[in-house]
Amino acid sequence: MIQKIITPDINQWDALCKRPAIDTEDLNGLVQQVFKEIKQNGDVALKKYTQLFDGSNPAEVMVSQEEIAVAIAQVPNDLKAAVQLAKANIEKFHAAQAEEKQVIETVTGVECWRESRAIEKVGIYIPGGSAPLFSTVLMLAVPAAIAGCKQIVLCSPPDKQGNINPAILYAAQLSGVTSIYKVGGIQAIGAMAFGTQSITKVDKIFGPGNQYVTAAKQAAFANGVAIDLPAGPSELLVIADATANAEFVAADLLSQAEHGADSQVVLVSDNEVLVNQTMQAIDVQVAHLPRKDIALAALQNSRAIVLKDTQACMAFSNAYAPEHLILATADADALADKVINAGSVFIGNYSCESAGDYASGTNHTLPTNVYARSYSGVSLDSFVKKITFQKITAQGLQNIGPAIEIMAAAESLDAHKNAVTIRLNTLKNV
Amino acid sequence: MIQKIITPDINQWDALCKRPAIDTEDLNGLVQQVFKEIKQNGDVALKKYTQLFDGSNPAEVMVSQEEIAVAIAQVPNDLKAAVQLAKANIEKFHAAQAEEKQVIETVTGVECWRESRAIEKVGIYIPGGSAPLFSTVLMLAVPAAIAGCKQIVLCSPPDKQGNINPAILYAAQLSGVTSIYKVGGIQAIGAMAFGTQSITKVDKIFGPGNQYVTAAKQAAFANGVAIDLPAGPSELLVIADATANAEFVAADLLSQAEHGADSQVVLVSDNEVLVNQTMQAIDVQVAHLPRKDIALAALQNSRAIVLKDTQACMAFSNAYAPEHLILATADADALADKVINAGSVFIGNYSCESAGDYASGTNHTLPTNVYARSYSGVSLDSFVKKITFQKITAQGLQNIGPAIEIMAAAESLDAHKNAVTIRLNTLKNV
Repeated sequence: MIQKIITPDINQWDALCKRPAIDTEDLNGLVQQVFKEIKQNGDVALKKYTQLFDGSNPAEVMVSQEEIAVAIAQVPNDLKAAVQLAKANIEKFHAAQAEEKQVIETVTGVECWRESRAIEKVGIYIPGGSAPLFSTVLMLAVPAAIAGCKQIVLCSPPDKQGNINPAILYAAQLSGVTSIYKVGGIQAIGAMAFGTQSITKVDKIFGPGNQYVTAAKQAAFANGVAIDLPAGPSELLVIADATANAEFVAADLLSQAEHGADSQVVLVSDNEVLVNQTMQAIDVQVAHLPRKDIALAALQNSRAIVLKDTQACMAFSNAYAPEHLILATADADALADKVINAGSVFIGNYSCESAGDYASGTNHTLPTNVYARSYSGVSLDSFVKKITFQKITAQGLQNIGPAIEIMAAAESLDAHKNAVTIRLNTLKNV
Repeated sequence: MIQKIITPDINQWDALCKRPAIDTEDLNGLVQQVFKEIKQNGDVALKKYTQLFDGSNPAEVMVSQEEIAVAIAQVPNDLKAAVQLAKANIEKFHAAQAEEKQVIETVTGVECWRESRAIEKVGIYIPGGSAPLFSTVLMLAVPAAIAGCKQIVLCSPPDKQGNINPAILYAAQLSGVTSIYKVGGIQAIGAMAFGTQSITKVDKIFGPGNQYVTAAKQAAFANGVAIDLPAGPSELLVIADATANAEFVAADLLSQAEHGADSQVVLVSDNEVLVNQTMQAIDVQVAHLPRKDIALAALQNSRAIVLKDTQACMAFSNAYAPEHLILATADADALADKVINAGSVFIGNYSCESAGDYASGTNHTLPTNVYARSYSGVSLDSFVKKITFQKITAQGLQNIGPAIEIMAAAESLDAHKNAVTIRLNTLKNV
């Protein structure tokens, strides 16, 4: 069960912010072997490893239009409507992130601006297994489509019958995925990193996965393919005071804990009574969960910390840098202004993490494992490059050229200086 | 000298886009050894390696205010004025990149928005050696200061006398660096990644460096510290037609070639005459350069490619994905709209790369080595996290809650569903 810690000394905070170590080095040999075979044998290697790792032997790697049509017919209408609502909200929130071109004339005759250009080819990895993560399809494919990515490739491992879950295919079709492949794990990441006969090489790979996928994404990155975020187990920190509802807080902590045994759950409060009530509510609620064992295992690593006031709670949260942060306090709005490090923040008693996980419109692909100190979550920005442009007139170069000549000379870069001098000289002769 | 290739078949493009392989794996053992000693011995390890690698033994690791004052007095006034002009332009361009908070009500009662929060502690690495790269100090410290980073740490190796170049100290002081340390190479990156008695641990490390610095930054990244960009040699691709000035083009190509023997220079043109004139102009200009040997070595890896029209030239450029792209053609504006992959684009005959390297206002820290397909250059965005916030009212949750319940159940995540159900139930009872 959750470990309760009352007013720890600030010297203990570092230890209380520690995440379990992730080590994927043992898997590097396997990743290199699979990558090598994919580079050499392409689709043949994919088939081999899909048989070996997934025990599946689909006739074709690519999902056909017919399969998609059949799958869509199988998705219940209420689920379709829910996915459509979520998609509309994600679309609205991410479309608003588009940046207008804004030309800045830094000096007369020197115009500079940025333009967003879509990453041409992106790959989305969606894990298989018990829970078909179609919500992650929306979170990655919707902004990719808004950005204008030309190819949006999706890979997901097939089940034993050679199929991908219908809800994943429905979400992919709805949100603009251009091709879907029945391949998972290391071999999927390798296929998107290097390309095969069937699968296009992509410029950036997105999506969650187990330790094999994580190790493969790291290796893909070392091979020149960008990745969305460094990997780590999912995390939630809740700051709650006496005005919070212990049942709600318990439900939120459990929603995080059910993700995996390595999930991190932290409750920080200025009120020990609320902490005790929450721990009791967890006991009651966890008993009914299908993923009870996973949640209980995650709670073993988890902490409830009592600090002197909500300001101290916020300071601890900034030190911890949680992926998700719920503010369930009377002063939640004021606390939100104090957030320095977090992936996504949920303000007030009705803003549960589940809302952001599925349907409010924000993205659920967020920095974990202290990377919230330095990384943003996935957004429209993740699917574009913001390219700088500049257009300098003869007069503009006359305005800044002498400064460039002096600086280049001081850096001992005479050819840099000369590129200006040779132009300014022609202008002197006019 | 530059290799000339006339209308290569499109099947050859892949090979023509190849960069030399970078391999830092051999250095990993050394990096791990230095990092281990820094973690164990802190400043003592820094002193040891500064003596060993830089042959320098400064009394203090930190540069004092007195040293800065003395250094500033040594910087010539014309260089100070040039640096101030460059700083003002960089500031103007980067300040305009700040994002306004924009609240999106995706559904009634569901408000979502992003807020930029500065990365608290950033580290800037500035190499030592022959060319004191004070321009890079401006490019990294100015946006860090605009973002509001609380600690802006700068590390640069001392010379044999234990000093850092005065122009670097001047630029650092001018642009808001909060502390400057006399430490270089692997040990500087390790100190910023782990912290020592003197040097603060930072959240993100920026700046260029040799293969040792590159290997150390990769290792720091593996230890949870973000880095600016994957490393690679600097590159320039020029698209020039008959209206271009061969002398200007030659000067631009040489300004890139003088960076290092591994620099990449590519001229693409629809006009063989212009290519020949440019190659002749290079011959003339290179003879006078102090860094002639470096430039000549870089030209050995370089290519001049003739294609049928400027559209084909642009298509090649997009396949190559250059760090810097100069458009010296009659249709430069129209070509600029076709740019898909590039770090920074220079439009027209007076927009030389040197302008962006120093003083126009755009950033010169840009993606290399095909990463321009997926990465933006450094900007204000590089120094902030864009954190998502959401505030959902009771009515808002009633609007999206049922969709969340259906989706969570379909993903077999019952605790996610329960976090909504438990709230909706209390509202039913009101």
